Amino acid sequence: MSTHGQGIVVLVSGGVDSSVLVHYVAREPGHGGIHAVSFNYGQRHSRELVCAAYQAKAAGAVEHKILDISFLGPLLREGSVLLAGGNAVPDLKDVPDRERTQPPTYVPNRNMMLLSMAAAYAEAHGMREVYYGAQAQDEYGYWDCTREFLERINAVLALNRKEAVQICAPFVDKSKAEIVGMGFELGVDFSHTWSCYRGEETACGTCPTCVERLNAFKAVGMEDPIEY
Amino acid sequence: MSTHGQGIVVLVSGGVDSSVLVHYVAREPGHGGIHAVSFNYGQRHSRELVCAAYQAKAAGAVEHKILDISFLGPLLREGSVLLAGGNAVPDLKDVPDRERTQPPTYVPNRNMMLLSMAAAYAEAHGMREVYYGAQAQDEYGYWDCTREFLERINAVLALNRKEAVQICAPFVDKSKAEIVGMGFELGVDFSHTWSCYRGEETACGTCPTCVERLNAFKAVGMEDPIEY
Repeated sequence: MSTHGQGIVVLVSGGVDSSVLVHYVAREPGHGGIHAVSFNYGQRHSRELVCAAYQAKAAGAVEHKILDISFLGPLLREGSVLLAGGNAVPDLKDVPDRERTQPPTYVPNRNMMLLSMAAAYAEAHGMREVYYGAQAQDEYGYWDCTREFLERINAVLALNRKEAVQICAPFVDKSKAEIVGMGFELGVDFSHTWSCYRGEETACGTCPTCVERLNAFKAVGMEDPIEY
Repeated sequence: MSTHGQGIVVLVSGGVDSSVLVHYVAREPGHGGIHAVSFNYGQRHSRELVCAAYQAKAAGAVEHKILDISFLGPLLREGSVLLAGGNAVPDLKDVPDRERTQPPTYVPNRNMMLLSMAAAYAEAHGMREVYYGAQAQDEYGYWDCTREFLERINAVLALNRKEAVQICAPFVDKSKAEIVGMGFELGVDFSHTWSCYRGEETACGTCPTCVERLNAFKAVGMEDPIEY
């Protein structure tokens, strides 16, 4: 954690991991103010952004910016079912095992895009750290949520000749159940989080992220407060 | 050069390096079609985009997309004189030597942002290579135009579990004079290129990029056809 006191950037999507993350870093001393950043990238489940705003405020962020990069949606649609207008989101049970290392809900190079913008924003404002809620043990596997990805992207940023920004992912080795458990300890109101990839009125309970979320709450013996 | 024939992405800014680049890769066999991509990132010299369109067409690109990420301008303005609304662009002679490794015209993390979006676009459309016109021997030094940057960003992308996109910068070890020389050999019409950071009616001739451009033309004994 930075002790420079000049503030930190925290990526908050409004899902479980990043909602717990923003409360987690808010408790650490010396961060100098949380600048929450969310992205509208044309995701089906843009209602998660309302949850992001709620969690940023609840954690005492000094600002919350939603960056609109939704123009990317149509450009990337062929590559992901997560984007509005693309193919339908499948149930987890219908995703073949062979696709689980890079499933249809993967958005091409999403995290590198979001982190590079967040790092630019941090750098322009004299901040040195960007936090994101990557956790490697997803039901699905995403190459851009791993410790190796984190190390390699920091190796790029370390080349900066003035002040290098560092990407920090304190949950990268934690399971979703551990993160949910931490969230309850931190007093996170999970009724204001959103995970379902389908982005309808209530969560579907069967898409990959719903299954993963429900399993995590079950593992810590708690009830998920959102409607299914 | 790819021989898969599924097309390649080429970043074309409308400056000298990328204009020569698009003609250079167009001559290589087996690329399967050039998808030119430009960015409006709130740069003062957005007239370079008109030149980008000209050069993409002249090189026979199958499409030319201009991605509007100008919302980033106000967010990054404090970090760069290159962005409209920021501080004035200085003359090269007024930039202290100590600032030349990361000068005021540097845009925070720009190339990582642009390359990550271009890589996402390529990946979503089954293309495997993204070309950009980095050349390390600028009058000024930018950490995100070096061979080391190129290698490290490719180390990130290599983690992709399906088809990794590769960033290619064939001019990374060339001087601007060599690139201008190649451009004349390739028949590039330099009257349709734009470099001046000030973005006024005619090029200023004194800002860092004008000085660099003029020196390069002089070094190969050719006249720069644009108006100063």
